[in-house]
Order: sequence, then structure tokens, then C-alpha cells
Amino acid sequence: MQDVQSSFDPRNVALKKVGVKNVRYPITVLDKINKVQHTTGLIDLFANLPHHFKGTHMSRFIEVFHQHHRSLSMKQFLSMLDEVRTVLDAEEAYGNVRFPYYIAKTAPASGQESYLEYQCGFSGHVSPLRRRFYVAVEVPVMTLCPCSREISERGAHNQRGHVRVKVLMGQDFFWLEDLVILIESCASSGLYTLLKREDEKFVTEYSYDHPVFVEDLVRDVTVKLEDWGIFPWFEVQAENMESIHNHEAYAAVERGVDQ
Amino acid sequence: MQDVQSSFDPRNVALKKVGVKNVRYPITVLDKINKVQHTTGLIDLFANLPHHFKGTHMSRFIEVFHQHHRSLSMKQFLSMLDEVRTVLDAEEAYGNVRFPYYIAKTAPASGQESYLEYQCGFSGHVSPLRRRFYVAVEVPVMTLCPCSREISERGAHNQRGHVRVKVLMGQDFFWLEDLVILIESCASSGLYTLLKREDEKFVTEYSYDHPVFVEDLVRDVTVKLEDWGIFPWFEVQAENMESIHNHEAYAAVERGVDQ
Amino acid sequence: MQDVQSSFDPRNVALKKVGVKNVRYPITVLDKINKVQHTTGLIDLFANLPHHFKGTHMSRFIEVFHQHHRSLSMKQFLSMLDEVRTVLDAEEAYGNVRFPYYIAKTAPASGQESYLEYQCGFSGHVSPLRRRFYVAVEVPVMTLCPCSREISERGAHNQRGHVRVKVLMGQDFFWLEDLVILIESCASSGLYTLLKREDEKFVTEYSYDHPVFVEDLVRDVTVKLEDWGIFPWFEVQAENMESIHNHEAYAAVERGVDQ
Amino acid sequence: MQDVQSSFDPRNVALKKVGVKNVRYPITVLDKINKVQHTTGLIDLFANLPHHFKGTHMSRFIEVFHQHHRSLSMKQFLSMLDEVRTVLDAEEAYGNVRFPYYIAKTAPASGQESYLEYQCGFSGHVSPLRRRFYVAVEVPVMTLCPCSREISERGAHNQRGHVRVKVLMGQDFFWLEDLVILIESCASSGLYTLLKREDEKFVTEYSYDHPVFVEDLVRDVTVKLEDWGIFPWFEVQAENMESIHNHEAYAAVERGVDQ
Repeated sequence: MQDVQSSFDPRNVALKKVGVKNVRYPITVLDKINKVQHTTGLIDLFANLPHHFKGTHMSRFIEVFHQHHRSLSMKQFLSMLDEVRTVLDAEEAYGNVRFPYYIAKTAPASGQESYLEYQCGFSGHVSPLRRRFYVAVEVPVMTLCPCSREISERGAHNQRGHVRVKVLMGQDFFWLEDLVILIESCASSGLYTLLKREDEKFVTEYSYDHPVFVEDLVRDVTVKLEDWGIFPWFEVQAENMESIHNHEAYAAVERGVDQ
Repeated sequence: MQDVQSSFDPRNVALKKVGVKNVRYPITVLDKINKVQHTTGLIDLFANLPHHFKGTHMSRFIEVFHQHHRSLSMKQFLSMLDEVRTVLDAEEAYGNVRFPYYIAKTAPASGQESYLEYQCGFSGHVSPLRRRFYVAVEVPVMTLCPCSREISERGAHNQRGHVRVKVLMGQDFFWLEDLVILIESCASSGLYTLLKREDEKFVTEYSYDHPVFVEDLVRDVTVKLEDWGIFPWFEVQAENMESIHNHEAYAAVERGVDQ
Repeated sequence: MQDVQSSFDPRNVALKKVGVKNVRYPITVLDKINKVQHTTGLIDLFANLPHHFKGTHMSRFIEVFHQHHRSLSMKQFLSMLDEVRTVLDAEEAYGNVRFPYYIAKTAPASGQESYLEYQCGFSGHVSPLRRRFYVAVEVPVMTLCPCSREISERGAHNQRGHVRVKVLMGQDFFWLEDLVILIESCASSGLYTLLKREDEKFVTEYSYDHPVFVEDLVRDVTVKLEDWGIFPWFEVQAENMESIHNHEAYAAVERGVDQ
Repeated sequence: MQDVQSSFDPRNVALKKVGVKNVRYPITVLDKINKVQHTTGLIDLFANLPHHFKGTHMSRFIEVFHQHHRSLSMKQFLSMLDEVRTVLDAEEAYGNVRFPYYIAKTAPASGQESYLEYQCGFSGHVSPLRRRFYVAVEVPVMTLCPCSREISERGAHNQRGHVRVKVLMGQDFFWLEDLVILIESCASSGLYTLLKREDEKFVTEYSYDHPVFVEDLVRDVTVKLEDWGIFPWFEVQAENMESIHNHEAYAAVERGVDQ
């Protein structure tokens, strides 16, 4: 059967990326408390394609991923990308996996337990000159507006917001759980799936006592990430689903070097 | 050229609906202030199909809609569905058009003007026995929790919420704008795209003074719709993007008869 | 602490549904091959609310679900809704859980294995008069147009489509896997995450030999479901992401009695 | 009333971007045929924030945009960003507007007219050192697989795909319509909302005669954009909603300099 993809291409246009996108697959990742967590992944895998080849072999990306879907640790992610390079005879490989990750949380007053979902992501890039692995996490939080509190005689507008942090991994391993705790500690309050009445009172008063703008949130996370000191580069974004508007308030910081 | 669709089908399965879905088209609707508003529609059009026909003629739905896309008033919608019945030789026709609609709003203290978007929808059904036209509107609002306010020494959690109302049209014409105002008057506060500092103070204090559960919101809208008295049937749903949770609080009421 | 929700409400408006929506939680469901499958759920839980109560107790829905999230079988779903009725002192309870479900598939020529994701859902309703449990599955398929094939001298347009089936459960247990196989057998071809070149040839030729309209698809699924004979009521929808249009072709059948 | 935002911030963290996101607003853009087109925009506006200010003034972004929403031409976009810099006393401003844009298309055989929607975007960045304006367009197309055609005895899998092109504007004005035509000419076929039977035959046979991989598509668009020669930098992405898989095939090229 003819291998159309391997035939010569005369257009002299090299492709930066070619591959598969939005592959939905069961995955298993590490869990600080339970050792592993089974979850559902959304996967992109790409390689570069030299100008002289007409096409790539899409099925090989899936074959490699299928071998690794039950052990997607931070460590093994770049090995998987190395395999992609090998089987596709490519110089560069890129991977991106997004997944919901669940952490058990304890309500602040009643102590009742429930799970909260965090959207997480692993991504990587390997080439002869460069090996990069990034971890991303989106943390839903509560933010209470310092301006609204200051200028109003009673109350203060507050809302659900999302903090998105992406870090470049350096030499040190870390747990998603610890990154989440760092981020939640910078908000007016963390969120909980289950809150009894005494917890609702606690969260309401605590958030009133800890007002933050999106600007404060990204700065406080930045200061804490720099104190932690293990990430050569990171990006922090905060987005408030403003309770007084139908749009979002947004702030972003980028720190470090990623060359 | 053979007309495959018109050939005989032996399976003896009549289709309830067949047609086109998620057609994206420019549309023009009526506007209380500016006479007309140009916006962007997402359209579904269906007819029934008797068991003896193999298929429908999909292009005819588009031909009919194309004739009407510049004058999609409440009145003309059912005429359009009548045309669908005629050109497709069908007993029943169904239509659904969703569109963003913009209303200029004045900030409560500064008086500054800005537009707010409302997701709206027209839908209809015509058959030999039945003619129904429904209007739907989704209104983003602010809600402040009565329980949180009552049990807390300071502050109260509040959030953006959405009220979705669907009404069966009776004999009387009405404006989308008036339905929106009715709904906003039942929330802790309406939303605004543009608020200056004095407006933010106003909205914060006003919402603190007007706490509502989702339960209150759907009930208050229900009472006002019944007082208006022009809709034979309606449905009211409210959904809060809780600032203390990562999920929504929800309530729904259905009233009247739609047979 | 005051229980605001339990106070008397004078508006005389009973709520059809009140509760929590879009709760994201890890869940475990039954799996025909592997006994259980761990996946990620999106959950709605509602109860009715008599007119004299001001509000419901939202946290109790979560407490009940938390007890059941690791054993969400078809059988236990209605028991969970019974608990919702009890803890909320409500007459009616409603539940809805949507989740991705993975089935290992074997490529038709090479025999290589990969997983394919199916969006599934359980939903139920219990009241003093009524107990209903529904299973929904969305199956991505390939459809090749009979008209295009018939009128063209070469080729035929084909596309990815989705078949959505919702069944009312009767006396007999069944596996999601068997419902999926039934549906895929009615399409021009099933889909696969991993296809080698010999598989691509097989699927291309097989689909060319088995053209179906959306109309054919819903009818063939209907005939096979009626032959199976275990569902008192069902609904079949098919939707093609037409390769020649930017909109979808749609067909729907409803059969049986659900009173 | 206190201006909390203008107070001193001691954390020494400058913000890269702060502002408003997902603002929904009616907009008017230029149209090659009809002079102007009224459509619906989704808008982000950001500025940088020096480390010594606690917060930005979010309402000013909306005030500036409101002045410009009825004349969002490519030329005026950067002037709007200049105003953002002025009113916020910022060095840098960023803007992003996404909108559906409709173009009338003529069916290839019957000559019948209908509208097709294209997702478009304007984005810009102004700073003391840099002025950049980008135009993005997403074109839905039909692609027929060369490999499937080559190896199969009959038929070939084809599907709807999307080509996304983003260009950096240079000295020369251009029309969205011309960029769309260039892109559609590289696909197996363009799409149409309305096709009669003779058109369907035409599109089926034409696409069979013009098979393209995603790799071919991005290369052909690249060659034509380079021939056009007016863009200092551009990016081309193609994504196929594969009819034989439940995931997408993807390819990307980047060309030129954007420093």
C-alpha cells in the first residue's frame, strides 16, 4: 500500500507542528495522598515536519500515548515526547495534557469533607537543544473587592474567580496539592463543595477580612512562588467573574527566564 | 439527477423532527428604542417526516430562512414556519433562533451609559392543531445571600447569577426590554458594563439591602409575571454562580397551561 | 444560628425544582470488562420545595452525593434520590450525572487496540407516584451521504456525526457497551482513536458501501431498539457535522410511553 | 470617596497586563461589499501596571471602548489603544476583539446565494517601542484525505476542517474577504450554507479531485500568503474534525519576523 505521507514535498515549507489534537483518553496521574488518581485527559501531541516530507504518520502519536496513559507522571512525560521524536523521526516533539484533578477538602468550621475539582495540565517540548516541562493549574477562589468594601457603608461585592498558574519545572519535584494550597492562601477564601451553615458564616467573615483585587491576587501568588524558589519561570493569571458586571476583571504577571 | 430523499422507505418509522441545526446567520430583530437591531443568530429548523419518505430536503430550510433573516419579528416567525411546512410538504414545523440582544443601560449614580448583552431566543411550533410562539431571555444579575447576611457579623456572599425566563406568547405583543426590566427588578441588583466608583458604592449597598436566594428570585419573577397576566404559560429558572462554591445553586418554577 | 431557609414564605409559589447544578466530582461506574471504571462526573441534584418554605438546604444534596460517588450504578441511583427526598423532606427528587466513559476498541484490519470516549449520562426522578431511571449515551460515528454517492461520479461526502440515545430503563439490566455496539452498527462506520493504513482503507471502503442519512441512522437504531424490546420509552437523535456545510443535519425519533 | 486603586503598593511586582476580559458589546466593522457590517463582539482590553500602584481603574477601559464600538476599523484600533494608554497613564496597552463576520456566497452550480459565518479577530499592542496590529480569521472548509483516496478502491474520507490564519499588518490595507478567498482556494472545497443537488454533486466531485492533508493546507496557504507579500509575519493553523476519528488532525506554520 502506498505511503503517501512519506513522498517528497516540493513546496519548501517546513511545518512547526503537526499531529493530533483533542484526543480524549483515560489517564492516571500521581496523587499526594492516594498515590495515584484516575481521571480523564484531553491530549495534544505534535512533532515538527521537515519541508521535504509530504505528511506525518498520525497513528504513531496515538500508539506512543497509549503506552503511557496509565503512568503520566511529570518525570515520564518528557520520555514519552522522546519516543514521539523517535517513532516520527522528528527533531522536535510537543505534548499537552489537560485533566480535572480532585482534592479532598475539609470545611473550615464543621470539618466536613468533600472533593473540589481543579483543572490541571502538563505540557512539554523536547528538541536537540531544549527540554521543557510545564505544569499548569486553575484554582477557583473567592475574591472580595477592597474598593467596594472601603467605599460602602455595608457589604462588599465578591465573586468566584479563577487563578491560573503555569510553572516551568526545574530540578525539584513538587505536588499539585502544594501549589493549590499556595494559591488558595492568597485569595479572599478558598472554595468548598460542601459548606454547612457555620462554615458559610466563617467564609463570609473571613473573606470580608481579606479583600483582594485581581491585582493583589497575582502579586501575592508571585511573591510566594518566588519565596518557594524552585521554578525558573512562571506565569500567574487571575480572572474574576465580577458579581456587578457581566464580564471578567483580569490581571497577569510573568517572571523568570524560559529560553 | 436522482432524488434519493423522495424514494420510499420501508422501515415504518416516522420521524418527529428532521432538519438543520446550528446554522449561523445574520439576523435583524425589533428594538424598542432603535426600531431594529442587527445581531447574530444561531438557528435550528425542523419538520416532521412521514414514515414513507426516505429523507427530507435540507436545503429548503435554508432557502426559507434566507428570505426572512432580515425581519425576524415575533409575528413573522410563525409565518416562516408555515412556509417550512409548505415547501417540505410536512404537517409540523419547528424553529428556534438564539441571539445576543443589547440594551443601553444607565449607571445608577453617575448616569453613564453602556450596553449590556442579553441572550435571547424565539422558538415556535406549528401543526394543523397547534400554533405556539415562545420568547426566552437570559438576564445576568447580582444576588446576595440572605442566609449569609443573617448569620455573619460583617459582609454577605454575593455573585453573578442568571435568570432564564421562557414565555408562551398569548394575544398581546410585548417588548424584550420590558421583560428584562421586570426580571432585573427581582434581583439583588441588575448588572452594568460600566460603573464608576459612586455606582459601585450604590450597587454594593443596594444589593446588601435586597438579599435574595435563587428561590426568592424565581418566586418574585413568577408573581410579577402573573400580575402582568399576558402569558398563558411560562417557566422561570435562576442559577447562581455561587462565590463560595464551584457549582451553581438552582431553582425553577413552571406556571400555566401549554397544551 | 438562624435557619433562614426554614422560615415561612408568604408568596404561595411552590418550586418545581431547587438544588445544586454543575457539581464536578470523581465517580465510579460499572464496566462490563473491568468491573468498575473511575471517571469524572458533572452532577445536578434537585428536589421540589413546597410553597410555605423560604428555601432549601443546599449542602444536604452534596452530603448525600458524597456518600454515593464511588458506586454510581443504575440500581443505586434511585436509592440515592430516595435519600435526597428524606433528608430534604421533599416529595420529589431529580438527579442527573453526565460522564465520559471509555471503551477499548479493536481496529478492524490491524487489530490494534485503543480507547474511545463516549459521553454518557444517568438521570432519574422519584416521587410518591413515579420512579424513573434513564440512561443516555452519545456515540460519535462516521456517516456517508447516500445522495452525494448516488449523484456523483466519484467520491461521496462523509463526516463525523453523533448519535444520542436516551432510554427509560424497564425491568432488565443492560450494559452501556451493548447499547454502544447497537448504535455503531447502524452508522456508515464506527470511529477509532487508532487506525493504521490498512484500517483506514477498510473504513473508507466500508463506509462507502454503507451510506446513511441522519434519517436512516435514527430509523435503524429505532428498529434495533424495538427488537431488543427492553425499553418502555426511548429517544434517538442523530446529528451530522456536515463536511459540505458549516451546520449540522439533524433527525429525531421518540418511541414508547413515559407517563 | 477613597481611591484605593491609586494607593501605593509595596510588593514590588509590576503587572504585565491588567484590565477587562470577555466584554460583550455590539460592534460595527468595515465590509467590502456593504461598507459596514453590524455584528457582536467579545472584547479584552489590558494595560500594564507599574509596581507602585495598587490597582487599575477598570471602568476607564469600558469608557474608551464605548466611544469606538461603532467604528472598529483596522486603522482606528491602535488609536483606541493609544487612548487606553492615556486614560490609564500606562506605557503599554493590549486589545483583542473577536466577532462573527458574514460573507454572501454563491453556490458553485446553482448560483444560489447564502451567508457563511467566519470567526474573525482584531488584536493590537502599543508601547513606546512597538505598534502591532493583527488580523485573525477562521475559515471552515472541506478536506478530503489524499492517503485514504490513494489506498482505497472507492471513496475517500473527508470532513469539515478549520483553517486559522493570523497576520501582522504591514503598510497595506486589505479586506477580510480577500484573505478568506485565498484560504478557501487551498482546501478540497469551501463550505456553503445553501447547496442544491447539482451543487452537492459539484462539491463532492471537486473535493475528490482536490485532496489535501492538513499539512498541504497550511503549506498552500503559506505559499499564497508569501506571494501576496504584504504581511511581515503570519501564522497558519489547520485542524480537521476527522470523519474516521473522534479527534482532530492538526498542522501549523509560522513565517516572518514579529519583534
